[in-house]
Amino acid sequence: MPKQYLSFRNIQFLLYEVFDATSLGKYTYYEDHNKETFDMILEAAKQLADKHLHPYFSEMDRKPPHYTNGKIYVHPKVKELMKLYGEGGWISATSTYEEGGQQLPLVISNLIGFIFGAANYSASIFPFLTTGASNLIRNFGSEELKKQYIPKMYAGEWQGTMALTEPQAGSSLSDVQTTATPSERGDYLIKGQKIFISAGDHDAVDNVIHLMLARIKGAPAGTKGISLFVVPQKRVESGQLVNNDVITAGMYHKMGYKGAPIAHLIMGEKEDCRGYLVGEAHKGLSYMFQMMNEARLGVGMSAISIASGAYYASLEYARERPQGRLLSAKNPAEAQVNIIEHPDVRRMLLFQKSVIEGSLSLLLQCSLYADLEKVSEGVEKESYFLLLDLLTPIAKSYPSEMAILTTSAAIQCLGGYGYLEDFTPEQFFRDTRIHPIHEGTTGIQGLDLLGRKLMMHEGKALTLLIDEMRKTIVSVPKESGIRIQKHELAEAIQHLHAVTIHLTDLAKQGKPENFLADATLYLEYFSIVTIGWQWLIQGLVSEKALRKTNLGEDDRHFYEGKMAAFYYFFEYELPKIEWLHHRLISTNRLTVTMESAYLN
Amino acid sequence: MPKQYLSFRNIQFLLYEVFDATSLGKYTYYEDHNKETFDMILEAAKQLADKHLHPYFSEMDRKPPHYTNGKIYVHPKVKELMKLYGEGGWISATSTYEEGGQQLPLVISNLIGFIFGAANYSASIFPFLTTGASNLIRNFGSEELKKQYIPKMYAGEWQGTMALTEPQAGSSLSDVQTTATPSERGDYLIKGQKIFISAGDHDAVDNVIHLMLARIKGAPAGTKGISLFVVPQKRVESGQLVNNDVITAGMYHKMGYKGAPIAHLIMGEKEDCRGYLVGEAHKGLSYMFQMMNEARLGVGMSAISIASGAYYASLEYARERPQGRLLSAKNPAEAQVNIIEHPDVRRMLLFQKSVIEGSLSLLLQCSLYADLEKVSEGVEKESYFLLLDLLTPIAKSYPSEMAILTTSAAIQCLGGYGYLEDFTPEQFFRDTRIHPIHEGTTGIQGLDLLGRKLMMHEGKALTLLIDEMRKTIVSVPKESGIRIQKHELAEAIQHLHAVTIHLTDLAKQGKPENFLADATLYLEYFSIVTIGWQWLIQGLVSEKALRKTNLGEDDRHFYEGKMAAFYYFFEYELPKIEWLHHRLISTNRLTVTMESAYLN
Repeated sequence: MPKQYLSFRNIQFLLYEVFDATSLGKYTYYEDHNKETFDMILEAAKQLADKHLHPYFSEMDRKPPHYTNGKIYVHPKVKELMKLYGEGGWISATSTYEEGGQQLPLVISNLIGFIFGAANYSASIFPFLTTGASNLIRNFGSEELKKQYIPKMYAGEWQGTMALTEPQAGSSLSDVQTTATPSERGDYLIKGQKIFISAGDHDAVDNVIHLMLARIKGAPAGTKGISLFVVPQKRVESGQLVNNDVITAGMYHKMGYKGAPIAHLIMGEKEDCRGYLVGEAHKGLSYMFQMMNEARLGVGMSAISIASGAYYASLEYARERPQGRLLSAKNPAEAQVNIIEHPDVRRMLLFQKSVIEGSLSLLLQCSLYADLEKVSEGVEKESYFLLLDLLTPIAKSYPSEMAILTTSAAIQCLGGYGYLEDFTPEQFFRDTRIHPIHEGTTGIQGLDLLGRKLMMHEGKALTLLIDEMRKTIVSVPKESGIRIQKHELAEAIQHLHAVTIHLTDLAKQGKPENFLADATLYLEYFSIVTIGWQWLIQGLVSEKALRKTNLGEDDRHFYEGKMAAFYYFFEYELPKIEWLHHRLISTNRLTVTMESAYLN
Repeated sequence: MPKQYLSFRNIQFLLYEVFDATSLGKYTYYEDHNKETFDMILEAAKQLADKHLHPYFSEMDRKPPHYTNGKIYVHPKVKELMKLYGEGGWISATSTYEEGGQQLPLVISNLIGFIFGAANYSASIFPFLTTGASNLIRNFGSEELKKQYIPKMYAGEWQGTMALTEPQAGSSLSDVQTTATPSERGDYLIKGQKIFISAGDHDAVDNVIHLMLARIKGAPAGTKGISLFVVPQKRVESGQLVNNDVITAGMYHKMGYKGAPIAHLIMGEKEDCRGYLVGEAHKGLSYMFQMMNEARLGVGMSAISIASGAYYASLEYARERPQGRLLSAKNPAEAQVNIIEHPDVRRMLLFQKSVIEGSLSLLLQCSLYADLEKVSEGVEKESYFLLLDLLTPIAKSYPSEMAILTTSAAIQCLGGYGYLEDFTPEQFFRDTRIHPIHEGTTGIQGLDLLGRKLMMHEGKALTLLIDEMRKTIVSVPKESGIRIQKHELAEAIQHLHAVTIHLTDLAKQGKPENFLADATLYLEYFSIVTIGWQWLIQGLVSEKALRKTNLGEDDRHFYEGKMAAFYYFFEYELPKIEWLHHRLISTNRLTVTMESAYLN
């Protein structure tokens, strides 16, 4: 097992040198937080990950959950972990002091997700799902629901889930058919089935609390008729847990992410499944999207955490594996060099590093927007909201899509060994493939960005974001060594803007198909520019740091590594917008105009 | 299990409408072959695949070989298959009538590989490895070796292997350390170990014949001191098979391609492993490369066959899965459409189709060059040799790299189901990941193309290839509907030529590192242009076919599908050379100039 799976130094660089996260402390809500509390919490997370998650990385893959007699049984370590997550306050950390939390900003709690995910993604999902589900109850549920569910969830005794997907309603959530019929006792009788429910049932907890979408009898079709319910696996009656008629009909066997159980649930077979309405009727989808947006950042974070694990595994291998000689070496009797000396191996390592550290930077940027939105007001609050909303599909999908390629590059660095189960990259490659699918596929993210987010408030979000990018650009000094990259980014933003106008003009012509056909490619384009911006920020800070005269060797290597990844991104990744531009301004709409019968 | 895993119609289109493969019949060597014999053989291959390979696709993955008491045991079906492969003449097909073969051209035998690989890649490797090994004995071995080994190998009773890799000699083959000491009886005593040997030991055959690289004691260091030996697992002594001191030290557990056993071998532990020299001493590597080059086409074919299996699985799903509504549809109460109607799904399907059918076309083009080289003479022979030699790294690596992406796209088409073991795409995704690694990694292919193949005979191969491409270009009529794409390809070739000159100038300056640092990207660039050429050929034929007035509906759909994939390639794939161009003409050489310590 490789020793390193993430860079703590990089986390600190981003938090304190790039983003000045401690400045959150000036807001009353976060006033107890400072560098010390952040570091203490992150180090505690790392210790937990080192001791209790990372050692089970392979084992939880090899000994996946099993489904026996209607119940899912997970690796025994999960029971211990749930206790640790509960006792350590990892589930409640972002909630208020009154609620038993630590008022931790998202920028830190998302880093906890990064740390846990890099150590063992499957083991990391249980607390985050529980936090997400409890947030919905906190924000929209009645006092009674809060009292009944939240303490047990925070304690890690009860698992929380998001129960959205149904056999006929995956990407098309508006087709949810699970029904909720008002009962005489004031609750609802739930009937239907849900599929792909992460942690939807397992023996490491006493109960599972589903935050479930269903349609109240008589509700309008489409998204406007969907309500949100708490549907517990076991409900409390006279102080006792009794069966709530939620049957675990099966468990899915997956390519990766095997340590986590994904359940198929059937509710109301005996007409005795009770659900408790959260908030108002018919507003379920908008509530759920609050959780979903946080979950989407979480998916991006998980993807990049897995990519980080794979990167360090391949880096460690490249440093230790002798093979071949330098391209300029002629003598075959000479000793072999370690493969990290080969330009092509360095290219594959820098590719991983530039994607991972660029994405992590963006995810922290988004987390900070969320933290600032929470404590600010008026125009400022709206700005943070819009920026976060616009960037969410990017922060979800870029890491998810790119982690397929970076973990594949990690495999390639190991050659034949990379394909073996004895080494970790192959598991990272399998584990991360879920991310472009769950919590809204990449295709859905593209439609969300181009079809919805850009159009909001007459394009205000895009204007705000471009302003943010320009702020970075103008802060690069004229004599800087990275002024070329500054100009390249400025030009890329102009091109992005031109493509955006070209596409939105199609929308104005009333041709949604022509407008949105390549939304996925537009998303990719937008993502590359955005990550370029995050790299310009990091390059600026690193260039400055390298000017210090008293820099120790470790620090110098760290900042030089940043500069190498920065140059890599501008040399090898940013130019990819050129082909995307070519395609996006083309008038050919073959995927719209063709007949399906042509596909053969 | 999806019904379809390849398009027989496409095979016939390529063979007869694009390449006129039957014209091989005008050469004496192939004179017994014609459309009827080709079709008969390919249909027989398809029947074998349908009946004996495809049904075991998932099962061989779920029940992989196991290693017990020094022996590898494979799925019981493999024993039956070896018999069928032998009896059906599938192992000997390309050899001469005198040798018991059918003088089958490679263009057909590689298609047999495509058919078997698409049905069940793991099950397909056994006969092809045996054919490759027997070809080395046929071409370079003594009459005695031929008599002793070839009949049993052709019968499928004995397995053949390529035994090259050692723990310290993977990509760097010149570091082979296995030794061969001449013995008094005229053979050699072999000592050493080999790793990653496909089909290196299994219980479905009576014996395994390793074509093994080793160094005769006292041989010079590097590639010039490597010799080729037949090293059988059991040797014949007095008409009996006796143990030849080749120990199976272990079996590798892989991410995919699980049905095939990969062995770790140790030779000469008891100083009793006998090897028999093939051809002359110290010429082993050049002999091996004859087999290796065919094997590289085979790898490209296998990659694209797996991609084909995944494509048809995702196409079938897309035709049958209702989800969502058209982008222009407003009414949520309307019935859902099948996802094949969504432009983004069509994009993912056309991506797969354009890569698969473009690659298959190139692989048949290369196979034909090999077939023509075999029967021609003088300048013509040299031309075919050079074209094949230049294109081999492309035909190996483009399908291998792209199949990662196309099988990933197949997964994405299925959404959450794509990640499940109950559906086939996840296995295709795992199976194909080996291809950029074995038989020379993509990095090695890039160095081979840019550092060796381009330079051969003062760049003659490139001149010949560009001439071939220009022939296609000038054959597109002025009034053709694909004249824009004709110009795009012509321009792409010019750009490729410019980049080539830019890079080879660096070589002339004596800076091999600067020249070769991005050879992998150059390979990608060259590959995209080459596949664009193959699509122009196919577009030309299809456009013509569509002009026929009496075209049936199936044929019309087939050719319209070709045109859609053709346009797709020019709209979405060819433009990728733009960013590669940007990078390849840059003077920044960060992967050369950086220090390894910066990677952190």
